[in-house]
Amino acid sequence: MNDQSTDIYIPTFEDVKAARERIAPHVHRTPVLTSSTFDRMTGAELYFKCENFQKAGVFKARGASNAVFGLSDEQAARGVATHSSGNHGLALSYAAGRRGITATVVMPRTAPEAKKAAVRGYGGTVVECEPSTSAREARLEEVIAESGADFVHPYNDHRVIAGQGTCSLELHEDVGPLDAVIAPIGGGGMISGTCLTLSNIAPQTKIYAAEPEQADDVYRSFHAGRIIEDDAPQTIADGLKVSMRPRTWHFVSSYVTDVLLVSEQEIIDAMRLTWQRMKIVIEPSSAVALAAVFRNKDLFAGKRVGVIVTGGNVDLDRLPWL
Amino acid sequence: MNDQSTDIYIPTFEDVKAARERIAPHVHRTPVLTSSTFDRMTGAELYFKCENFQKAGVFKARGASNAVFGLSDEQAARGVATHSSGNHGLALSYAAGRRGITATVVMPRTAPEAKKAAVRGYGGTVVECEPSTSAREARLEEVIAESGADFVHPYNDHRVIAGQGTCSLELHEDVGPLDAVIAPIGGGGMISGTCLTLSNIAPQTKIYAAEPEQADDVYRSFHAGRIIEDDAPQTIADGLKVSMRPRTWHFVSSYVTDVLLVSEQEIIDAMRLTWQRMKIVIEPSSAVALAAVFRNKDLFAGKRVGVIVTGGNVDLDRLPWL
Repeated sequence: MNDQSTDIYIPTFEDVKAARERIAPHVHRTPVLTSSTFDRMTGAELYFKCENFQKAGVFKARGASNAVFGLSDEQAARGVATHSSGNHGLALSYAAGRRGITATVVMPRTAPEAKKAAVRGYGGTVVECEPSTSAREARLEEVIAESGADFVHPYNDHRVIAGQGTCSLELHEDVGPLDAVIAPIGGGGMISGTCLTLSNIAPQTKIYAAEPEQADDVYRSFHAGRIIEDDAPQTIADGLKVSMRPRTWHFVSSYVTDVLLVSEQEIIDAMRLTWQRMKIVIEPSSAVALAAVFRNKDLFAGKRVGVIVTGGNVDLDRLPWL
Repeated sequence: MNDQSTDIYIPTFEDVKAARERIAPHVHRTPVLTSSTFDRMTGAELYFKCENFQKAGVFKARGASNAVFGLSDEQAARGVATHSSGNHGLALSYAAGRRGITATVVMPRTAPEAKKAAVRGYGGTVVECEPSTSAREARLEEVIAESGADFVHPYNDHRVIAGQGTCSLELHEDVGPLDAVIAPIGGGGMISGTCLTLSNIAPQTKIYAAEPEQADDVYRSFHAGRIIEDDAPQTIADGLKVSMRPRTWHFVSSYVTDVLLVSEQEIIDAMRLTWQRMKIVIEPSSAVALAAVFRNKDLFAGKRVGVIVTGGNVDLDRLPWL
């Protein structure tokens, strides 16, 4: 599988431009919102790139669409497959549905029924496995061996990274040069795409990765100079529990200015405040970026800052402040 | 007070155009969003005019700003006053704050502390009264007698109606001619402004008012041909409990195609579904319009329909589906 590759292809900005053409009919060019309240609170000029309004409710529709629509007809006929208990499974199911091919998503049998139902709602097939990394990988290998499906890793895939790179391309076009861009980081797909694009078109823009203190593997990796994986982290930002892989570590180690940590309470407070003042539904992972701006006001005051709002898939029956 | 006037000034489309110039620096030109999910569910092409993103979280910032910024300096120095336990109090406080003048809002002492705090947060002064119409009007008359403040009625005011009329002007400019526009109705300020504008620039567009079954005074008035007031209606759509007054009845009786009723459960379902699929925070009153489209699919299928999302001020600690 991709994870074990040592000789890896690192996508280029040409790949981002090709991705933009390829996915344009299938994803939204999402709006950029501003908030005078948050500008006043932080002293910065904040530009919120609203990927919560993206197809499937998350930026991952970009990378998944780029992978799915880049397949030859012959490959596509065998479908796509992945492991995911979250947004990537939704996004891949969405993209595969648009192309009329099958998407198989390996999910732990212990995953919430609502998440399995959401994948099925987008047309994906859920295959359950025992809740462990080894069981997940073994089950996915079986699926691929049986079907010949193309494995689309949630982030350690050059097609996915190039697809995510289209987000900051739009942001740059819409608001012009920024002093900084901040996005939450889990496995690093969005941050890698952001690094790829901005290092080409706006190399002066600083890129910050925001991470929960309780899943601080990127912070530790960044300071150690090598990938360190978390051991079963617990955070409300459930999209950010995974660890980097070689392709994303390449970008993080080369282009990220700093990794900023936030507490669970800061995430909840930023999420609630965004719902209350901006009137948009964002998921906890998305709130991590704004929370990091609040915690590091001195770093951003007086600056023009892009904030990537990564997604809006929330269980409305279980809000973290209730 | 305005309420008792018999010889009333009905605003014209010239007033709407003047309002647009006057309020432009003080309100947002709000975005129009679409939803492929809702289009698929209804068979219509829906255009959501998102006044939940408006200043103070509600369309009423338009009318309030038009009233406040239309005052002479001499009048303005004496401030503005109103009675409101909801969004108009916020909006008037916002507009007055922008001009640097005082806004006094008479509220029942039984109103939630959170609402009083919100008015104060926008710079308004809360004056409490006993929770009855007569007490409210008496207290407001005292405030005006003492201060000489200008009374800005929440909807029975030509300046307010002209201000609300700027909303459908923007909608029309952004998406072109529509077959229908639907908005929730309480006292009728937004619907009146919509009638005023569209009867001038798009007279073929049908205008529907959506109303809770449990506060169906407009429905009954519409069919009786005269204003009928509700007696203490109970609905989750708390912005829609008030009754029409002569200026708004003029527009409703002249230009509205029909009044569509929805149940409390339909309001809650439409609100939750909007949060879930569109990722925007809307208040129960706003959901009334979408709920009416769901209930009357035959009326709207195949049509281009504008849906006015009136506001997004919700108590996030008390969601109606929890």
